[in-house]
Amino acid sequence: MPQRTIGVFDSGVGGLTVLQAIRKHLPDEDLVYLGDTARVPYGTKSPETVLRYALQAAEFLCAHQVKMIVVACNTASSVALQILTHHFNIPVVGVIVPGAQEAVRISTSGRIGVIGTEGTVNSGAYQREISTLRDGVQVFTAACPLFVPLAEEGWANHEIARLAAHEYLLPLLRNNIDTLVLGCTHYPLLKDTLRQVLPAQVNMVDSATQTAITVRSLLRHHHTLCQEKPKRVGSCRFYVTDVPTRFVRVGSAFLGEELKEVERVTLPAISPDMMRFP
Amino acid sequence: MPQRTIGVFDSGVGGLTVLQAIRKHLPDEDLVYLGDTARVPYGTKSPETVLRYALQAAEFLCAHQVKMIVVACNTASSVALQILTHHFNIPVVGVIVPGAQEAVRISTSGRIGVIGTEGTVNSGAYQREISTLRDGVQVFTAACPLFVPLAEEGWANHEIARLAAHEYLLPLLRNNIDTLVLGCTHYPLLKDTLRQVLPAQVNMVDSATQTAITVRSLLRHHHTLCQEKPKRVGSCRFYVTDVPTRFVRVGSAFLGEELKEVERVTLPAISPDMMRFP
Repeated sequence: MPQRTIGVFDSGVGGLTVLQAIRKHLPDEDLVYLGDTARVPYGTKSPETVLRYALQAAEFLCAHQVKMIVVACNTASSVALQILTHHFNIPVVGVIVPGAQEAVRISTSGRIGVIGTEGTVNSGAYQREISTLRDGVQVFTAACPLFVPLAEEGWANHEIARLAAHEYLLPLLRNNIDTLVLGCTHYPLLKDTLRQVLPAQVNMVDSATQTAITVRSLLRHHHTLCQEKPKRVGSCRFYVTDVPTRFVRVGSAFLGEELKEVERVTLPAISPDMMRFP
Repeated sequence: MPQRTIGVFDSGVGGLTVLQAIRKHLPDEDLVYLGDTARVPYGTKSPETVLRYALQAAEFLCAHQVKMIVVACNTASSVALQILTHHFNIPVVGVIVPGAQEAVRISTSGRIGVIGTEGTVNSGAYQREISTLRDGVQVFTAACPLFVPLAEEGWANHEIARLAAHEYLLPLLRNNIDTLVLGCTHYPLLKDTLRQVLPAQVNMVDSATQTAITVRSLLRHHHTLCQEKPKRVGSCRFYVTDVPTRFVRVGSAFLGEELKEVERVTLPAISPDMMRFP
């Protein structure tokens, strides 16, 4: 019998949108979710610091015998994916590549907008991935620091969110994008507001669904897909690094259901050697 | 000759408004500033986690032979002041009491509003301090999670900030406050916007100036005020826990001048015993 558990981590609640998509596409898999709430957010921190935090999170998940690690955080995916893949002997899936692939697939004009945190945008990860996938595509990016607090405040559909969206998207729209990648796991909550600001012909790419599809393909490829019969309903365990109160309160909107039994943990220290690129 | 250095810490750039006030009131004192940028913000984290971070910051400052610790962060002041005072054998000054004292002094109606982070508001620290200072005062609080990103984004005077201020302050104004305490070191940057939303008769209390005055009184009381003649200009060293790039860029608006020579450091671990209240 193959190991069942998929490990998913994020800086906080945002990755729960990815977890939700994985549960929808792979309902029989067991899942372990880690939110590094004692150090959230990652989006304003340096690549080096985010890399260290990501390595600690991956170490924690590996101690839970996971068969795959999903980096459900765009900032961590943008800086840590390569080194995580190098250090851990299981598949590591980020949220950047699945979103980039979908954007390239659906864009007709080859003018793609990407919105995300400062960290994600500054990393240039989307530009790299998209230009690797298709020649001649132009990528326009915008950091949207207010979107995370707006989503967590429950103000995703407030006039303030609409104004902020207008402000952030205007430079991208002036560049005539036909596709917009939501490059942060918080942003799916702002979909309705973004839709109001975007012209009808601009497509939105939500990486959560694309990531779930990639996870399924990879598990199939590695013959580690859970295929028990009769069909089972997978379990889901939640861990956080700070007291869970706020995670439980804010996270339910991200998961789409009530969060229960969230445990606080301390992440393992990592050796400085792990920080070095091979 | 008395030791010269005053240690100041905050989760990030916000405390630079307090540092600026201290420099204005005590220009000949040497200062050491620490911003815990690898774990910023503190305002959404649990009291226990913030206490741990504050103890580490204080340990770091004490290794720099400071004669006083200024907790230039309302969230840390609201949860850690008592235990810091217990553990460190030098005066520890927070930003809550100076602001509370000033609010009580200037309020005529005894109806005081306090705005701050979730952590500060949930701690009840302002309510406790204000009610200790004057009987019968009523305190009305509001958490304003968007104000920190708005200030850091450079949008303090944007229409979005005005809308958010209106939203956050309305419940306080309905309670007929005559005084509003800016209970977060980021909020002085939003003063003009808040002024537009507040009726003219409502006073604003900015804790930074009050804290600087308290620091001066305490140093005088302990006979540790720098009184060299001829008058000197104190030095200022800056330390952060993440790569300094963002701190330097965003922090300059908070300090009111360009930030130079910021060094990255690792904070010392603390013993779990220190977390226990005596």
